[in-house]
Amino acid sequence: MKNLNVPLPGREYNIVIESGLLDQVGRYCRTACPRARRFVIVTDSNVGPLYGERVKNSFSERFPVRLVTLPAGEKTKSVEWLSFLWEAFMDFGLTRTDAVIALGGGVVGDLTGFAAASILRGVDFIQVPTTLLAQVDSSVGGKVAIDLEHGKNLAGAFWQPRAVLMDPDCLKTLSDRFFADGMAEVLKYGCIWDADFFQRLLDCGNRVGIMAQIEEVLYTCCSIKAQVVLEDEQDHGLRMILNFGHTLGHAYELAYHYETYTHGQAVAAGMCRAAEIGVTLGVTDPAVPEQIVRAVRQFGLPDWIDCSMEDYRRAVGLDKKSTGNQITLILLEEMGKTKPTRLSREQVLELIAPYGKG
Amino acid sequence: MKNLNVPLPGREYNIVIESGLLDQVGRYCRTACPRARRFVIVTDSNVGPLYGERVKNSFSERFPVRLVTLPAGEKTKSVEWLSFLWEAFMDFGLTRTDAVIALGGGVVGDLTGFAAASILRGVDFIQVPTTLLAQVDSSVGGKVAIDLEHGKNLAGAFWQPRAVLMDPDCLKTLSDRFFADGMAEVLKYGCIWDADFFQRLLDCGNRVGIMAQIEEVLYTCCSIKAQVVLEDEQDHGLRMILNFGHTLGHAYELAYHYETYTHGQAVAAGMCRAAEIGVTLGVTDPAVPEQIVRAVRQFGLPDWIDCSMEDYRRAVGLDKKSTGNQITLILLEEMGKTKPTRLSREQVLELIAPYGKG
Repeated sequence: MKNLNVPLPGREYNIVIESGLLDQVGRYCRTACPRARRFVIVTDSNVGPLYGERVKNSFSERFPVRLVTLPAGEKTKSVEWLSFLWEAFMDFGLTRTDAVIALGGGVVGDLTGFAAASILRGVDFIQVPTTLLAQVDSSVGGKVAIDLEHGKNLAGAFWQPRAVLMDPDCLKTLSDRFFADGMAEVLKYGCIWDADFFQRLLDCGNRVGIMAQIEEVLYTCCSIKAQVVLEDEQDHGLRMILNFGHTLGHAYELAYHYETYTHGQAVAAGMCRAAEIGVTLGVTDPAVPEQIVRAVRQFGLPDWIDCSMEDYRRAVGLDKKSTGNQITLILLEEMGKTKPTRLSREQVLELIAPYGKG
Repeated sequence: MKNLNVPLPGREYNIVIESGLLDQVGRYCRTACPRARRFVIVTDSNVGPLYGERVKNSFSERFPVRLVTLPAGEKTKSVEWLSFLWEAFMDFGLTRTDAVIALGGGVVGDLTGFAAASILRGVDFIQVPTTLLAQVDSSVGGKVAIDLEHGKNLAGAFWQPRAVLMDPDCLKTLSDRFFADGMAEVLKYGCIWDADFFQRLLDCGNRVGIMAQIEEVLYTCCSIKAQVVLEDEQDHGLRMILNFGHTLGHAYELAYHYETYTHGQAVAAGMCRAAEIGVTLGVTDPAVPEQIVRAVRQFGLPDWIDCSMEDYRRAVGLDKKSTGNQITLILLEEMGKTKPTRLSREQVLELIAPYGKG
């Protein structure tokens, strides 16, 4: 069992990592939200059948608990389901002192978090992430949002949870594809912050090796993310280093309409290219690209995704009206050390040109 | 010209009150949001034709400005129009450093404020309130929201404006009914905070008398509200005194489906009853009810609205699952001095019983 305190001023909270924790969600929620009398658990059609009743039953019978199960998938991060949740909360008689629990992956966490941030102008919110990606990334940091027609995560809030409760046993039911999805972000933390951690991940060899020390892995990732968020909660500076691999990754997600590749697969290929671009610019130690390529391959992630120059152009923001011609590319100096680099959009596109098709 | 500084830590802003200010909105927005390069002005079909182009033209041609005109009326404070605004902002290419301006009454301010609070997790926001009610009440304090099917203002945020710009000349185009709507809240500030101000309002005699010293009246109301909000931004304590007259007022709004009576009319009658209930409980100086009745009549507001016990019961929260049996009724000790009083819902209903029909 590991406990990580996130000392945000006035909104301090704990990240608890423990095998079998799902059976103690009720107890932890009571401690984190002592004034709450009613709880809504929001989950999806993948996670609900596996863990929904178990988490609901972890609450004492003295507290009314409602389980709301939404369709699984990114399409649920919509204004329609946000509105559905708002009405469901009110229908259940939720008050300003009650609490909402997100049980699931990033979609459930982001949508439920925004619904909690906005219902009655904000109620308490607990994250119970069940995927590796949500455990190491989206459940920590307080960014919650829905997608709009114009793009992903465009409407939302900064809304910190009262607690993040992770049960590593949930990861056992993930497919290899979705385990790898999270591993891309795990590797990213090594790249941007901790070369030793990166090496330890390589030494784990594969999924089984990672699971043998999963509490330590989750703790390290969350600890890095928490340090970054503490310095830059509202995303004005340091937080951008978390985007290592994401600018090019975004191009791949756009190119394949968020369908063919997972977020992690896109980020994995994006990190490989960002490392190479760093070498081209003379910023990055020339040994780094190969280390990253080896690591992503080792965990079943792609080191290359085909992409047209047109999709690269969209991802860099050269297709539409954008204010400011400069963007910041997160490069590495060496493994574990970032160098955010301001470049014009045209410069970035020139650097990408060798990789583009058409 | 009057300038009221609201020194919220880290989000300090100015309330500017000046005749002819509409022609200077562009200049003030530039000062309040120096990083903004694009501005969206949101207005409605009543206010847009009167002032939309004038405000738009107050911006230098160097800055792209889009005017968005929504249907006038409470029904626009919906999730559908919130979603419409989000997409309109993105369509215009709004970035995190740009700004949104609400030009209109409470509906436009509340909806636009919530859209600004949530697009890209929050952009700068300027209030340009054009009704008396919005100038003295909804534009100050940072509460923004939309209505849900379950009730009014149920989804929203606390999101402070970067500036509130009031042109008292806008009030000249208000009907007497909507001028009186705002006067109820103006009188309320006298009741809860400042007996001298209450007397000065009575001495003004009527709408013409108020307009003769409108800058002073607006300044006093905003100054009282700002003091309350500074002490209790997130509505955990003192802010509840702003609800004087609103518990019973809410019953009247519910009873007539927010249609027959304006908010101000409902609050006016609610203040008269709350004063009488205070006398019944021995809390309120017995001279107060008659003073309030005289004042509301003088400004064309009702001192009585018929209401069934069933609607009173709903307003007090006895019709549905509510947590906690106690509610806080805002009573007056004397003119200008409140006494928030905790009572059981049943006690409140007993006190109301003499007024209920059926």
